[in-house]
Amino acid sequence: MRPSKRAPDEMRPVTLERGVVRYAEGSCMVTFGETKVLCAASLEERGPGWLRGTGKGWVTAEYAMLPRATHERTRREVNSGKPSGRTQEIQRLIGRSLRAVVDLHAIGERQIVVDCDVIQADGGTRTASITGAWVALHECFAWMMKRSIISVNPLRDHVAAISCGIHQGKPVIDLDYAEDSAAETDANFVMTGSGGIVEVQGTAEGKPFSEEELLGLLRLAKAGVANLVEKQKQAIA
Amino acid sequence: MRPSKRAPDEMRPVTLERGVVRYAEGSCMVTFGETKVLCAASLEERGPGWLRGTGKGWVTAEYAMLPRATHERTRREVNSGKPSGRTQEIQRLIGRSLRAVVDLHAIGERQIVVDCDVIQADGGTRTASITGAWVALHECFAWMMKRSIISVNPLRDHVAAISCGIHQGKPVIDLDYAEDSAAETDANFVMTGSGGIVEVQGTAEGKPFSEEELLGLLRLAKAGVANLVEKQKQAIA
Amino acid sequence: MRPSKRAPDEMRPVTLERGVVRYAEGSCMVTFGETKVLCAASLEERGPGWLRGTGKGWVTAEYAMLPRATHERTRREVNSGKPSGRTQEIQRLIGRSLRAVVDLHAIGERQIVVDCDVIQADGGTRTASITGAWVALHECFAWMMKRSIISVNPLRDHVAAISCGIHQGKPVIDLDYAEDSAAETDANFVMTGSGGIVEVQGTAEGKPFSEEELLGLLRLAKAGVANLVEKQKQAIA
Amino acid sequence: MRPSKRAPDEMRPVTLERGVVRYAEGSCMVTFGETKVLCAASLEERGPGWLRGTGKGWVTAEYAMLPRATHERTRREVNSGKPSGRTQEIQRLIGRSLRAVVDLHAIGERQIVVDCDVIQADGGTRTASITGAWVALHECFAWMMKRSIISVNPLRDHVAAISCGIHQGKPVIDLDYAEDSAAETDANFVMTGSGGIVEVQGTAEGKPFSEEELLGLLRLAKAGVANLVEKQKQAIA
Amino acid sequence: MRPSKRAPDEMRPVTLERGVVRYAEGSCMVTFGETKVLCAASLEERGPGWLRGTGKGWVTAEYAMLPRATHERTRREVNSGKPSGRTQEIQRLIGRSLRAVVDLHAIGERQIVVDCDVIQADGGTRTASITGAWVALHECFAWMMKRSIISVNPLRDHVAAISCGIHQGKPVIDLDYAEDSAAETDANFVMTGSGGIVEVQGTAEGKPFSEEELLGLLRLAKAGVANLVEKQKQAIA
Amino acid sequence: MRPSKRAPDEMRPVTLERGVVRYAEGSCMVTFGETKVLCAASLEERGPGWLRGTGKGWVTAEYAMLPRATHERTRREVNSGKPSGRTQEIQRLIGRSLRAVVDLHAIGERQIVVDCDVIQADGGTRTASITGAWVALHECFAWMMKRSIISVNPLRDHVAAISCGIHQGKPVIDLDYAEDSAAETDANFVMTGSGGIVEVQGTAEGKPFSEEELLGLLRLAKAGVANLVEKQKQAIA
Repeated sequence: MRPSKRAPDEMRPVTLERGVVRYAEGSCMVTFGETKVLCAASLEERGPGWLRGTGKGWVTAEYAMLPRATHERTRREVNSGKPSGRTQEIQRLIGRSLRAVVDLHAIGERQIVVDCDVIQADGGTRTASITGAWVALHECFAWMMKRSIISVNPLRDHVAAISCGIHQGKPVIDLDYAEDSAAETDANFVMTGSGGIVEVQGTAEGKPFSEEELLGLLRLAKAGVANLVEKQKQAIA
Repeated sequence: MRPSKRAPDEMRPVTLERGVVRYAEGSCMVTFGETKVLCAASLEERGPGWLRGTGKGWVTAEYAMLPRATHERTRREVNSGKPSGRTQEIQRLIGRSLRAVVDLHAIGERQIVVDCDVIQADGGTRTASITGAWVALHECFAWMMKRSIISVNPLRDHVAAISCGIHQGKPVIDLDYAEDSAAETDANFVMTGSGGIVEVQGTAEGKPFSEEELLGLLRLAKAGVANLVEKQKQAIA
Repeated sequence: MRPSKRAPDEMRPVTLERGVVRYAEGSCMVTFGETKVLCAASLEERGPGWLRGTGKGWVTAEYAMLPRATHERTRREVNSGKPSGRTQEIQRLIGRSLRAVVDLHAIGERQIVVDCDVIQADGGTRTASITGAWVALHECFAWMMKRSIISVNPLRDHVAAISCGIHQGKPVIDLDYAEDSAAETDANFVMTGSGGIVEVQGTAEGKPFSEEELLGLLRLAKAGVANLVEKQKQAIA
Repeated sequence: MRPSKRAPDEMRPVTLERGVVRYAEGSCMVTFGETKVLCAASLEERGPGWLRGTGKGWVTAEYAMLPRATHERTRREVNSGKPSGRTQEIQRLIGRSLRAVVDLHAIGERQIVVDCDVIQADGGTRTASITGAWVALHECFAWMMKRSIISVNPLRDHVAAISCGIHQGKPVIDLDYAEDSAAETDANFVMTGSGGIVEVQGTAEGKPFSEEELLGLLRLAKAGVANLVEKQKQAIA
Repeated sequence: MRPSKRAPDEMRPVTLERGVVRYAEGSCMVTFGETKVLCAASLEERGPGWLRGTGKGWVTAEYAMLPRATHERTRREVNSGKPSGRTQEIQRLIGRSLRAVVDLHAIGERQIVVDCDVIQADGGTRTASITGAWVALHECFAWMMKRSIISVNPLRDHVAAISCGIHQGKPVIDLDYAEDSAAETDANFVMTGSGGIVEVQGTAEGKPFSEEELLGLLRLAKAGVANLVEKQKQAIA
Repeated sequence: MRPSKRAPDEMRPVTLERGVVRYAEGSCMVTFGETKVLCAASLEERGPGWLRGTGKGWVTAEYAMLPRATHERTRREVNSGKPSGRTQEIQRLIGRSLRAVVDLHAIGERQIVVDCDVIQADGGTRTASITGAWVALHECFAWMMKRSIISVNPLRDHVAAISCGIHQGKPVIDLDYAEDSAAETDANFVMTGSGGIVEVQGTAEGKPFSEEELLGLLRLAKAGVANLVEKQKQAIA
């Protein structure tokens, strides 16, 4: 039995709400159960310096947690002077995942920054962030097209993510914090709407895992991402 | 006529919602019109080192804005390695304001940190933060009393804050961003439930102001804070 | 009786000595009793980037204390990697105060930096800094006019500052360190030569203060600033 | 044809040389073709604070590149004040990989730090680091057993790592810099001597990859790691 | 002819004034011509951690320049987050020089920090600092002896310093800024009252110098330091 | 007897091996006994900003130690956010020493950075670095001449360095770590192939030294540097 009483292939309730902040060009509040992330996409007319003259734009992401998103208060990273290694890993992952489905030439020499700020953290903040960031990005591109800043939608596909893990020897999907802490293996899958894999990150926390177990996790993830893509479609409808 | 079309002594709609995040000992989402701040109070069993052995506790505050709380995206302070001067000024003000109505001995050698994270910024974020932080702190103390961590409520009074300013020569209350940018004088007042002044900060942005103008602003502020204290009473009822 | 044995409305002896360092375009050593601040104004031909093309200049200030200006040695801020919150608050206040009486267009696209370095600290360092910085700035503008860098004096008025406080229930002026540590309320007033208020910052250290008390402090401050403006006039004569 | 002219399943020549620096408790110079990493294991009698009283030890890793390990000189990270996101990702990966095969209780409350310094970088520096770090760690544990600091070897298995990728549509193993830059998909596999998977990190640089492609890479990696484990056995013989 | 019109062996007027700041246990304002440094010695009851239990104390120094000590304003080092290489070199030199004549056991487990803050810089700030720091340290030890904190004066000898250089092929003493900028060789000598050498630092700015030239500089320095030691004796009399 | 059993004027075995890393324009592995430093010279087409338009180039150096170059592991400086004072002193010394024998105009507006990374540290790392850096720089200039980037070799002479010290009252050359720790006086000499002195840095660690002792050290250094210059000639032959 999972601590959450969910079936192995049962995800938590997912919500994706668009337009949640007033000033951003695109935004989405995403919840995976008690995990809650505010994603805001900002258009910046100046892309990074190293793209000047290439005709290409850029999509990047930043990630942070409010100090009391967590069970115990977490110290603000600004007070230690730099983002932690974990924060950097996650924001690099979100950025790569989004760029995998964006035609950077279609943006022109601009930059979209998607900020993912975790309001409440109960496991799966990075996968929720990717899933919500896509909706915020979609809203941002719609905003740009409406104002004729771009004429073609740079989004080529959906992208969404889900965590899977081996918990008491069994593959399970969408781990909450309690399950994640107890899992032997923890894996995050980022996949597109057409089922391609963008990123796999699997880590044995306890004993190593086998090829079969990896495939079991992948199977769960495929169904989960398909489900998330459906939710994204409803959110942008 | 004010840009907001409000009467000179008319505040924006104010809401104070308790219990908005799951893990904090106390929390409050406060809105002053479009300004929206999430306040979360965290109990830390270890107070700051310099209080060890004094029997006294501490209340402190931290303040930050989400990057896209603002009209234009603001760079995260973690990326410049330190909180800006403005952030430090504000969080010191919030902490001082709260401590003015707390009996620090009644807390014991513990620390309460109140995090004020601005979700949306349309002027008055520091005054909204103080007003909402008081509610979060009240909830935190209630939580502590229920668990018999403390036996006496350390809160001695309400504290709330409001900004006033001179706009086109006329004193007005609760300036939004557009009004604030155009005001000749900008003042923040922090006052208690019993009408005492905890902090006055008045700044001439353009030409200096007179004693009469200062008194006009103070008069507006008194009424405004009384109004906010009423809202706090409803919120904790 | 005040610890300093002064009458409630009695300031410490004030001196303002011009031309104390050889290389600065303007300088002033200011003393308020045992408090001693070296103010040096530097003309920089390049203003800050965000003013380029506006025809406007800028006046800014920096503030620091020598490590042994204080009763106990204070750690150098360079060793903790950044100016403290207190330092930033003070230097922002000095800069705002000076700009309140300067016609920034008359400077052209240049910047004046006024460095206020506290040699000895016995309370009131920020008010002494503002008062002395004005003299250094005046000397700097005179230097620029003599060399025809500018043709009109950008200074529109005097600006000076004084601290007042409530000590054992009584409003007193120009608190030294011992008085400041014991005061219930502490307020700084920045005012112009013509009596306008540029900045008021009043803080209750202990119990909140009343409107009457605030007015009592303001009355003391007015007389004090008028006195300081007289000293400034003598200093630049 | 691969740029390196190697067959798809052909690794570069691998060497593992023990005892290459005089003062470290364990060390290994590892080369994968032109990639060359110096791994040094240091025993520290004091483990990290959060392990005090648990009877458990810790193994951690740090990773850096000499500035001219690369084709173009890379700026030292000390000059930007902090390790880059990439550096942090890699050193966290090396640490996790080593800990997966170490019995932390058998170390006692001590810490082993394995420094991986890249002397020359031609792709695969993180996989070479893991592979060489294991040898340095083995030597360190042997040193500790010889001195009776520990009585049981804490190493439970080998651990080694290899990169694979999809290059012009074909899965290939052990990519050098030129191949890595051109690969559509890049994956790193960390596996144990008994064939268990410790970590999989697969990233689509261009178009998403399929489950079949992932399995193709995994197959190559298994053979590659088995080969590396053989080399480790020879190195410690 | 030297730019300063001085004879090759002619130093600038030197003054050493004790007791210039109120709170420091020892202080000295030192001038070498237009160069002016405020030295303040602070007794700290807690020595550095690494001396605990050794019965030994420590003497250290910190060095800084006021921003407008120089011809052009220099940026505060706190704003770049760390002391520059030059600052660190100089403060290490001052500390070493003082420790060379102090019996660290006679201090007990305490620390004396000597702050050298340059008020005005016209060449030779490090040699003036050392010379003045010795006087401040002497005053600090006298203060400690008077209060019976120590019973034996830890100072074993005088220490003072002078710069020499080769200017247009001729050895000259005590270079001012203009001479220093034009010198081919620049050397600093730190020597004791009894004529021993504590530190020699000679640098060819242009062409290398010979053994004879080094000896010529040393000869000038000996006479110069003897002169400075005389001044120190007068200052402490 | 020296701890190393060497005669007072006997240096450790010295090796200088060119071309040790693949990508650098010039490189040299230098050993002085157990001390081992990897020197790599990198050509950068863009010189520092302040040389723009002068027609002059620049040669600079950076220095670091691998964490386990030392007997006890040393913390990476990147983790404390900045190079230590010692590191900065050494890299400034290496840069000055190299520039003393380079015609900066002959380089054009380019920069050569010589990285000196200490692989193993047994005393004398800065003198070994200078000696090896010269060989790396020579190789870099040869590389540039071969490609007609420059037409004249900018190197005007050799430069090499050796440490000397007074150990148990006797001048000795090329101190290893054990000797260096016990020496009363420690001096580093940087000299050219033609015998000119570029830099002398002598420090009394215990009691001050005399002019005669300084001359004794200089005599040893002259012979030592002549020897090193011979080795350099062989290395570049």
